[in-house]
Amino acid sequence: MVVGFIGFGEAAFAIASGLREAGVEHMVAYDAFQNDAMKARAEQIGMQLLDSVQAVGERATLVFSLVTPTAALPAAADIAPALQSDAVYADLNSCSPKRKQEIAALLSNTGARFAGVAVMSAVPPLRHRVPMLADGPGAHLLKRWMEPYGMRIDVVEGGVGAAAAVKMCRSVIVKGIEALFMEALLAASAAGVVDDVLASVDASFGNMTLSELANYLLVRNGQHGQRRAHELLDAAETVSSLGHTPWVTRGAAERLAWSAAQQARGFRAENPQSFREVLEALSRTDGESMG
Amino acid sequence: MVVGFIGFGEAAFAIASGLREAGVEHMVAYDAFQNDAMKARAEQIGMQLLDSVQAVGERATLVFSLVTPTAALPAAADIAPALQSDAVYADLNSCSPKRKQEIAALLSNTGARFAGVAVMSAVPPLRHRVPMLADGPGAHLLKRWMEPYGMRIDVVEGGVGAAAAVKMCRSVIVKGIEALFMEALLAASAAGVVDDVLASVDASFGNMTLSELANYLLVRNGQHGQRRAHELLDAAETVSSLGHTPWVTRGAAERLAWSAAQQARGFRAENPQSFREVLEALSRTDGESMG
Repeated sequence: MVVGFIGFGEAAFAIASGLREAGVEHMVAYDAFQNDAMKARAEQIGMQLLDSVQAVGERATLVFSLVTPTAALPAAADIAPALQSDAVYADLNSCSPKRKQEIAALLSNTGARFAGVAVMSAVPPLRHRVPMLADGPGAHLLKRWMEPYGMRIDVVEGGVGAAAAVKMCRSVIVKGIEALFMEALLAASAAGVVDDVLASVDASFGNMTLSELANYLLVRNGQHGQRRAHELLDAAETVSSLGHTPWVTRGAAERLAWSAAQQARGFRAENPQSFREVLEALSRTDGESMG
Repeated sequence: MVVGFIGFGEAAFAIASGLREAGVEHMVAYDAFQNDAMKARAEQIGMQLLDSVQAVGERATLVFSLVTPTAALPAAADIAPALQSDAVYADLNSCSPKRKQEIAALLSNTGARFAGVAVMSAVPPLRHRVPMLADGPGAHLLKRWMEPYGMRIDVVEGGVGAAAAVKMCRSVIVKGIEALFMEALLAASAAGVVDDVLASVDASFGNMTLSELANYLLVRNGQHGQRRAHELLDAAETVSSLGHTPWVTRGAAERLAWSAAQQARGFRAENPQSFREVLEALSRTDGESMG
């Protein structure tokens, strides 16, 4: 097996150096911006830097694309004519599901099997052991080939784009909660009540996991959507009056106002028992009024 | 003791009926919109409906204001000249901290002690036992008088407005998370990956309380604010491409972009160990660029 990297920046170097230590013998790479530092790093791990992306395609049985999200599609277009017909092409860039699908479509006539990979954590500390989700026709082969070298790959069913969607939706939740706490606690801090606020939410929800909390709150929304939307608007005003722009709160109030309007139009579950019913009813709304 | 209600809508009726059963003997009320149904309800619990808000002020040793958030200040102004000088005036309306302070200021020359009360749950099922937070000079007296009748009152230190601030900041967190999950899971649902997303967040954060999660995420933000802001913008694009307007996500991305900019300007904690350091650094920023 020859592992080829297109893009040889920090993440690619970290993965390649881990794979070298794990016993991968043949590795080649191409980067459009080769400089002396990059050449030194390649030499350090016995990586052969090639002169063109096509040369990587001609040599590699497994290609890792680690360029930038915007370069992911052009890089795939450049390598496509040179890809071996039994190769696996793994796109590790942090792209949208749609972009991953465009790349898969572009490679569909090459014979190479596409794997859409979402890298789920920062690469450098974990190197090749960083957790990855993979989808598409090449996902299982990628996992089978690389797990013996210590790579951690979970296959996501649902076709190309599914892994990226998991990563992106997870990112919305995690960094959204981060922004929300920042805003709420800046306001609480201005009022001198940070500890009271945290004690209050822990007293109510301390023993729930996030998915249990999601279920509880979406069911409540399905029951009292209008009132909760209104209460959040009031809260946004308070954030303002405490000296902070309610960016997250206002966005959240718009989302709840949308769901209240959709529920008023009939897109609601009667007496919902699970968040899935609420979500399904809201998902039935037509495109024009989609939130 | 005579308990007087200004405003005799659903919440006031529920509390009064609970207090009657708990043994409160003398109750009077005024409502600007008295109708037959209201009169019937008053009769049902032996509540004396009076003809003016002033008449309530003249009779009551404890006044509960349960009008509407916008009527809270005018109602206080109407009753002020008639209030007994040893009365407690408890404003239970869902107002901003600032409005509570305005009401307290307006009553400051009457001798009556103001209590700013935040009602922390829906009233009707729990009636007078609904959990309340109270602040201001009348808070402890309110608690002492009414706990024997089963009312549940926690005093919040920090002056008038503190209880309302706790309620409002809590509301931002709880309903903000509700809106965030709605948006993220609508997008996940469009991609067919709802279960994968929930499994992914639970795997990472399943054993944390919300305050532990807040601490973890704000410390991470203090370390990698710029990168995380950028990643959330990418995620917002994905929500869009999956057919949903990223209201919450975009608002959250603005908040993280603000914090990244403030951190770049030097309002950052070096190697923060707790969310308090991150929050404190961000709180030091000047008014003009406040978020």
